[in-house]
Amino acid sequence: MSIQARLEELGIILPKAAAPVASYVPVAVHRDCAYVSGQLPFIDGELVTGRLGDDVSLEDGMAAARACGLMILAQLEAARIPLDRVERVIKLGAFVTSTPDFADQPKVANGASELMFDVFGEAGRHARAAVGVPALPLGAAVEVDAVLALRD
Amino acid sequence: MSIQARLEELGIILPKAAAPVASYVPVAVHRDCAYVSGQLPFIDGELVTGRLGDDVSLEDGMAAARACGLMILAQLEAARIPLDRVERVIKLGAFVTSTPDFADQPKVANGASELMFDVFGEAGRHARAAVGVPALPLGAAVEVDAVLALRD
Amino acid sequence: MSIQARLEELGIILPKAAAPVASYVPVAVHRDCAYVSGQLPFIDGELVTGRLGDDVSLEDGMAAARACGLMILAQLEAARIPLDRVERVIKLGAFVTSTPDFADQPKVANGASELMFDVFGEAGRHARAAVGVPALPLGAAVEVDAVLALRD
Repeated sequence: MSIQARLEELGIILPKAAAPVASYVPVAVHRDCAYVSGQLPFIDGELVTGRLGDDVSLEDGMAAARACGLMILAQLEAARIPLDRVERVIKLGAFVTSTPDFADQPKVANGASELMFDVFGEAGRHARAAVGVPALPLGAAVEVDAVLALRD
Repeated sequence: MSIQARLEELGIILPKAAAPVASYVPVAVHRDCAYVSGQLPFIDGELVTGRLGDDVSLEDGMAAARACGLMILAQLEAARIPLDRVERVIKLGAFVTSTPDFADQPKVANGASELMFDVFGEAGRHARAAVGVPALPLGAAVEVDAVLALRD
Repeated sequence: MSIQARLEELGIILPKAAAPVASYVPVAVHRDCAYVSGQLPFIDGELVTGRLGDDVSLEDGMAAARACGLMILAQLEAARIPLDRVERVIKLGAFVTSTPDFADQPKVANGASELMFDVFGEAGRHARAAVGVPALPLGAAVEVDAVLALRD
C-alpha cells in the first residue's frame, strides 16, 4: 500500500507546510538522509501554545506532538520528497514546554512516535530524545525535529 | 584488548538495558551509524532524580551522566551490537536538569564523556552539546543521547 | 571565490577557537560529515552571558548566535578542515537561554543561520531546531551546534 493510501485509511489529512523563514530550510537532504527542522504543532491552522504541567493537559500535549509529526510529513512532501521514499524514521527530537515538576515528556512525545508507527509501520520505529524546555518559538507547547533515511 | 575485557579491567558492569516503551526504539541503526535514544541515569537500579544547582551535587550529577553513558553501552549490547563494533563515538547530547543559575553543565556531561574515553580510548572522543533543561522524563537529573559509528 | 576571500569581503575575522576540554573534541568527522560541538558566543574574547526575555536584548541575542556561528567556523579551521571543503551546512541546533515567556528563539537563531548563508551562499541553507533552555554552560546566552557535509 502506498503511504498516501495509508494516510487516507487513517483519515489523515496533512497540514499546509509552514513557509520557510530566514536563511534556514524546512528540510535539508544529504545523501540518503533528510534532516527536518524543528516543527511546531498546528491543529486546524492554529498553533498549540502553553506549558505542560500548567495550562496544557497531557492529552492536548500528545495531540500537539502528533501535530508536529504531521508537519514533519507535510514538510517532506512540500520539499518534493514523496513519503513512499521514506525508508526509515531514524531519530526524533521532542522538546516539550514544561514546568519544572512535569515529568511525562515521553508520554507527550508518544503523540509523534505513534504517528510515525501508524504511517510507516516498522519503518516508523525510531530512536528518540524527549526533554523539557522552558520556552519554544511562538509560545508553542511542543517542537519535534527528525532525521529520516530515504530510498532512491 | 576486547571492549569486554576493557570493561572488566575498569570494573564496569553494565546495567540492565531499560525496556523499550511506546513506538520508539533504544537504538536505530542506519548504514554504519547507530542512533541511541536519550538514556536516563540508573545507579544500582534506581533513577537519579533532581536538579543541579538545587538538590543534586556536581559530583552526583557527574555520576548520573556516567550512568547515562553506561546505559547507552547497555542498549547497544541489548540491540545485539557488540561494543567491539564501535568504530567511533561521534556525538553525545547531554541534557542536564538545571536551576536557572547553574552553569556547570560541561562538568556534569564529562561523566559520560570520560566514560567513553575510558572504554574506547581515542575512538571514544566525540563532539558534544551540553545544555540545561527545566525537567526530564521521570524527574531524571540527566539524559544523554548518542550517535556512534560502527564497523562491519 | 574562496571562502577565505568571502570572509574578507564580509569583513569577518574568525575568533580564536576555544580550546578543547575534557574527553570531547570540538569537531568529530565521520565519513563526509563533520559534527561540531555546541559552541558558545565570544565577542572580542568575552562570553555573552545572560537570558533572553530578561537582561539580553533580541539584538544582542542575535549577535550572540552569530558569534556561535563564527566559532563553529573557527573550530573547523582549527581542526584543519578548510572552509572551502564545506559542501553544505546540514543542520544547526540553537539553544537560547530564555525566560518562560520569551518566544523569539527563531529570531535569535537567525544570527547563526544568516551567517551561514552570508558565508556559504545556498550551501549555507540548513535544517534547524531552535529551543529555549533555562541555563547554558558558563551562563552563556546562546549555544549552537552543527552538522556539515564536507567534500574531499
